[in-house]
Amino acid sequence: KMLRRVLCTVLFMGALPSLAEVSQGHISVVLLGATGDLAKKYLWQGLFQLYMDQVSSGHSFTFHGAALTALEPGQRLMFDVLKKLACPPDESPNRCAVLKDQFLKLSQYHQLKTAENYTVLNREIEMLLRQEGLKEAGRIFYFSVPPFAYTEIARHINSSCRPPPGAWLRVVLEKPFGHDLESAQQLAAELTSFFREEEMYRVDHYLGKQAVAHILPFRDQNRQFLDPIWNRHHVERVEIVLKETVDAKGRTSFYEQYGVIRDVLQNHLTEALMFLTMELPANVSKAEEVLQCKLQAFQSLRSLEKSSAVLGQYQAYASQVQEELQKAQDYISTTPTFAGVLIHSDSLRWEGVPFILTSGKALDERVGYVRVLFKNRAYCTQSETLRDAGHSQCKAKQIIFYIGHGALNTPAVLVSRNLFRPVMPEGSWREAVGPSDLHIFGQPLSDYYMYSPVKERDAYSALISNIYHGRKDFFITTENLLASWAFWTPLLESISHQPLRLYPGGVENQHLLDFEMVSGEVAFTLAEPVELLNPTRLMPSDYKSIQSKFRQNPLVSAWSEDLISQLASDIEKTASRTVAHSGQFHLALSGGSSPVVLFQRLARHHYAFPWKHTHIWLVDERCVPLTDTESNFFSLHSHLLQSVRVPYFNVHPMPVHLNQRLCVEEDRGTELYAKEIMALVANASFDLVLLGVGVDGHTASLFPQSENGLEGAQTVVLTESPVKPHQRMSLSLPLINKAKQVFVLVLGKGKHDITTLLSRVGHEPRKWPVSGVSPSSGELVWYVDYEALLG
Amino acid sequence: KMLRRVLCTVLFMGALPSLAEVSQGHISVVLLGATGDLAKKYLWQGLFQLYMDQVSSGHSFTFHGAALTALEPGQRLMFDVLKKLACPPDESPNRCAVLKDQFLKLSQYHQLKTAENYTVLNREIEMLLRQEGLKEAGRIFYFSVPPFAYTEIARHINSSCRPPPGAWLRVVLEKPFGHDLESAQQLAAELTSFFREEEMYRVDHYLGKQAVAHILPFRDQNRQFLDPIWNRHHVERVEIVLKETVDAKGRTSFYEQYGVIRDVLQNHLTEALMFLTMELPANVSKAEEVLQCKLQAFQSLRSLEKSSAVLGQYQAYASQVQEELQKAQDYISTTPTFAGVLIHSDSLRWEGVPFILTSGKALDERVGYVRVLFKNRAYCTQSETLRDAGHSQCKAKQIIFYIGHGALNTPAVLVSRNLFRPVMPEGSWREAVGPSDLHIFGQPLSDYYMYSPVKERDAYSALISNIYHGRKDFFITTENLLASWAFWTPLLESISHQPLRLYPGGVENQHLLDFEMVSGEVAFTLAEPVELLNPTRLMPSDYKSIQSKFRQNPLVSAWSEDLISQLASDIEKTASRTVAHSGQFHLALSGGSSPVVLFQRLARHHYAFPWKHTHIWLVDERCVPLTDTESNFFSLHSHLLQSVRVPYFNVHPMPVHLNQRLCVEEDRGTELYAKEIMALVANASFDLVLLGVGVDGHTASLFPQSENGLEGAQTVVLTESPVKPHQRMSLSLPLINKAKQVFVLVLGKGKHDITTLLSRVGHEPRKWPVSGVSPSSGELVWYVDYEALLG
Repeated sequence: KMLRRVLCTVLFMGALPSLAEVSQGHISVVLLGATGDLAKKYLWQGLFQLYMDQVSSGHSFTFHGAALTALEPGQRLMFDVLKKLACPPDESPNRCAVLKDQFLKLSQYHQLKTAENYTVLNREIEMLLRQEGLKEAGRIFYFSVPPFAYTEIARHINSSCRPPPGAWLRVVLEKPFGHDLESAQQLAAELTSFFREEEMYRVDHYLGKQAVAHILPFRDQNRQFLDPIWNRHHVERVEIVLKETVDAKGRTSFYEQYGVIRDVLQNHLTEALMFLTMELPANVSKAEEVLQCKLQAFQSLRSLEKSSAVLGQYQAYASQVQEELQKAQDYISTTPTFAGVLIHSDSLRWEGVPFILTSGKALDERVGYVRVLFKNRAYCTQSETLRDAGHSQCKAKQIIFYIGHGALNTPAVLVSRNLFRPVMPEGSWREAVGPSDLHIFGQPLSDYYMYSPVKERDAYSALISNIYHGRKDFFITTENLLASWAFWTPLLESISHQPLRLYPGGVENQHLLDFEMVSGEVAFTLAEPVELLNPTRLMPSDYKSIQSKFRQNPLVSAWSEDLISQLASDIEKTASRTVAHSGQFHLALSGGSSPVVLFQRLARHHYAFPWKHTHIWLVDERCVPLTDTESNFFSLHSHLLQSVRVPYFNVHPMPVHLNQRLCVEEDRGTELYAKEIMALVANASFDLVLLGVGVDGHTASLFPQSENGLEGAQTVVLTESPVKPHQRMSLSLPLINKAKQVFVLVLGKGKHDITTLLSRVGHEPRKWPVSGVSPSSGELVWYVDYEALLG
Repeated sequence: KMLRRVLCTVLFMGALPSLAEVSQGHISVVLLGATGDLAKKYLWQGLFQLYMDQVSSGHSFTFHGAALTALEPGQRLMFDVLKKLACPPDESPNRCAVLKDQFLKLSQYHQLKTAENYTVLNREIEMLLRQEGLKEAGRIFYFSVPPFAYTEIARHINSSCRPPPGAWLRVVLEKPFGHDLESAQQLAAELTSFFREEEMYRVDHYLGKQAVAHILPFRDQNRQFLDPIWNRHHVERVEIVLKETVDAKGRTSFYEQYGVIRDVLQNHLTEALMFLTMELPANVSKAEEVLQCKLQAFQSLRSLEKSSAVLGQYQAYASQVQEELQKAQDYISTTPTFAGVLIHSDSLRWEGVPFILTSGKALDERVGYVRVLFKNRAYCTQSETLRDAGHSQCKAKQIIFYIGHGALNTPAVLVSRNLFRPVMPEGSWREAVGPSDLHIFGQPLSDYYMYSPVKERDAYSALISNIYHGRKDFFITTENLLASWAFWTPLLESISHQPLRLYPGGVENQHLLDFEMVSGEVAFTLAEPVELLNPTRLMPSDYKSIQSKFRQNPLVSAWSEDLISQLASDIEKTASRTVAHSGQFHLALSGGSSPVVLFQRLARHHYAFPWKHTHIWLVDERCVPLTDTESNFFSLHSHLLQSVRVPYFNVHPMPVHLNQRLCVEEDRGTELYAKEIMALVANASFDLVLLGVGVDGHTASLFPQSENGLEGAQTVVLTESPVKPHQRMSLSLPLINKAKQVFVLVLGKGKHDITTLLSRVGHEPRKWPVSGVSPSSGELVWYVDYEALLG
């Protein structure tokens, strides 16, 4: 009845659609959580905007608010909200008043609590449609409810509220979508059991922000200018920033579980990052192509480590948590309210470019932006004072997607005038002029071409319109979501007990939260004030390495992480010294799992390592093809070689695979390798050999009782391992003992017994091959972590 | 007689030395060219300063002006100069007046023209000493004469004017020291036949400039601050600049032979560069240690190419040359009066850091400086307006050695306050405050710690004092000089017919001389105005590629630059399509010079190229070790592989070097390669083969009349080249013809004849092997540039 009345009203108004046009079908919008904060603040207004925009589209609408509240009070609550809906400034007040009146009549409240309630809702929708003789186009269910309620609601919708065949279902989900990879996978799996991928619209409202939504179109429309410069050769750094002045007061029950990384970085800032770094698909409005490129961009991200982030917490947070969550006085929260994270992509396009993601509460200003700063490659011969203001190539070059608030207080796209005049879509963005005395990112506003939206739209209106149009590229697919969690979860885990820098909040923060990048890591610029949150837990770096003796040779011992970093820098020092002295550095590396962390550390933290002058040799190899994942060389390649620049000629894998077969005596692989060593390494004396130890006391691929390699000639030998793959190639002990330096790395509790044993036995290589390591005129150093040493 | 008189005068003055102190011995200074410009302007004043400073040192002095002019007029000319000698402001006028009087009495003019004249001079000095009963300490001969006169004078001094054993000889030489490596070697060889290295003092007056002379002491005294940051990880760029407002008018007879690079860059700016880049010796005041480090720094410089420099000439220069040198109206001078040169050092410390050397005449200001700009690695969370002015880590960090003139108009050392407060020697440098509103290098002067000399000294006074003290580290040794010429000469040769950008001079230059660095090269920022000295040459981008047929196959033709970029993107397209389809891409590449530009283009411009899934094969190889610069693989590695990330396993150099010998039949390298192809490339059918063409019609390493490879099996073969190195390995024509796609690249005028021929002949592989390229079920495309196609 209600619908008919409205349709009649519509028919009386010439400007509105005729009955014929109504044939596009009917859309039912169900807003779950209709009386909640988000609904009050944005969603109803967004739905009203949708109605105003689409009233002439040929679709008819009904809007169903739903909540757990009983009918009467729920109705009252909801209509209090609806009555306050605002008319947008660009709408004629008359038209808006009429449409608002209709919108109210088309809206209805339902209590949705039991399975029964859902069945009733479904029946009412069907009945209404039958009465009005309308074809059903589709149903939108907007979940504005806490995530624990998702599964239950999803089950009900799936079992009772699916539209008939031919009409679509769209369920709209609000974050949080889990709080780590595992929980996100679980939630995704549950939802997937109820809905098909194309039915789900996961909202990241940042994708509705006009400046963020324009990143891809901007890149697309300005290909001619960006193609040559959108890469590591031209981009100096990228900053993706959301600063807030508010704190978490009143929201700590949510915030304490999530923190700033889950709340802002994992979703909003990561999405912006992807729009910047992904390769451009041929067609940027094709959701599948965009998604494919985005997923590839995720694959290229270098994994984060503890040292990739700086974390802070505003001082008042602790007491807010204690108060709101009724915690004890000595309760310590480890939830960060500020984070600065340094991200690198290993794609050819972005290798080496720092992407800085920063967000925090209780900061000095509210602002959001994405800033691409280009390298300054110009030398201006004309002196500063005489340079032409706008176009000098010596001024900074930047492209900024200004999300909002801050000094500009409007979404905007800014492009330095000395870069190019961008192509902008005329209908939706227009050139704007800000206050001429305003400085932004170090330059007067007049240095930029500045564009702002013709019509400012809040993110939710934009997103609701995109849901209506089925533009899935504005939403987060399951794959996208899981890729993001897969990227962030290791960091979240590694920092869960990280000390946080306390900051007073607002302007008082001064320079406390400024941070710097140093060799792929970040650290606060100012020295640590007294601020550790976990004063009792000792951090590895609180220990000094133990320097002592083991088997009459120097011993370095520490927790494994510190040990590895010590070992890596000792190797670098040896390398630099050797290259300075003799022009090249011959390094022989062992296989196995222990060196992997070392390889990774060398790849990521040792930029001054003289790789160009380093020769890489293998200590031992398994008789498998080099491209086999079991191959020592393959592991070395994945964890080290592919990240550094060792010349091809300087890489010397063992020739275990000759004539299409593996380690056959008569192919003379061992001789070949020995000859190569003789030809390139002076006196066949490696500058440094890195060894490990097995639980049976083996080292290299020299096993107890081995027939070859434990004594005799200084050669390369074939050996047999007690474990698969049995066949091995290895440097012999006599050859190893010619080295100028030998480092033995021993890691982990599992090595405690053999370590203890080795500390007691003498030179018995046939029983414990590693006990035969004793460079005849070189140095031997043991790197043994506390777990191996102390158990 | 004269000397006795003076010594008596001296004795009458209490403040001056007693006879006892005179026992240090006597020094005779002979200034050759005593009435020339340099002598008038600086040298006499410098000698007077030396006298004032050293009158109490225990040495006695006589000063001998010399020139070709006859005695009478020469005497008159010289004493006109001496009378005008100024008293320095920090000297008491009385003392100065007395000393000036003495100085005049100690000075004497000689005509030095014939051998006889030198003998007479020598005799006079000896006589004087004998008369006065003085021991001789040493003799200084200052050559302020044109370089063509050097040898003659040197011979006379050597044969007639050497002091007796026990006294030293110092000859002081003024640049130019040759105009290229060869002439410098020749001049050095001549001088060396007369003087020992330690007797020669080659002046570069820049080493007397206080700010330049302080670079090394500054680095030494601030090691604690500089050690961590004086390297490529922290330094963004270095600028070494000498700008002049004057032009070459009146000096064109000299300037036209030298130009700005020989006049300023090869000497002054290069010396400053060395002080910055050299490793610090343990003792910076030990001349030999400094020299050793400097020579090492020269060794690390990457050699310059044509594209390392931008060159200009002020417009009036041409007519000044025509007028002063009586040249014809159509005479065109190719002498640059402006140069910007980009220099790289390949030392571990500086690899990748751009050093920009710039100098020119008729520019907008007179100024000299050395500016070290550090990388900005900070992210400042606090907003710009709230940052603490002085110390914010987000402001630029710089160290500037301000040589003089310009806005500061004093020598100075400036260090950004957010870097460190430098240690400066208190006696000679003091903290200074400049005008607070002055901006310098983009920042207010108040952002810097600024120091200026306690006593400003002109360069020649400083140098003359250093000669007197025997401080050889302030002079250019022969090795140093030749190292510098060895570095600059190849550039000078390659640019001798380079077009110059004409500039109007002064402020009018606007941005005409601004330049940018792009992938190791420099280019003017503004597009070329009509100004080329070779105005007829059309630029490549004026043409579109021609698409047509050649030998019944598709032909792409354009100017070489465009052709290469078209070919590179066609290869990328093929690669992406193939990888999308089959997961990998097998690319076989030819050697030779034409592909080099292609390799460079692929390395620098194709970020989306699927290198990770590409296999690289060689079409042909020379029988030399892979690390030989003649090796095709070596060239491929330097120009492409070392810049992209092809997995090690996917790189397939030809096995020309087995068992420590090259291409021996029985080592079966060809079989090995064929087997590798069979094992990895489906059906041995490469996805793409890139070929070239020789002037004799050869392709790959398949030469006319070759016994192997032109027909028969689809294999790899050994062949003989008519040119060295004769032995080659090559894919055979039948194997090439199995490829899915073959691109043939032909570049340059030199290939015009063979191109024309090929357009006419049929399938005659024995005569012209390339005519046999005809993929049996693949596509063949010819990429021929206009020069090869049209001649």
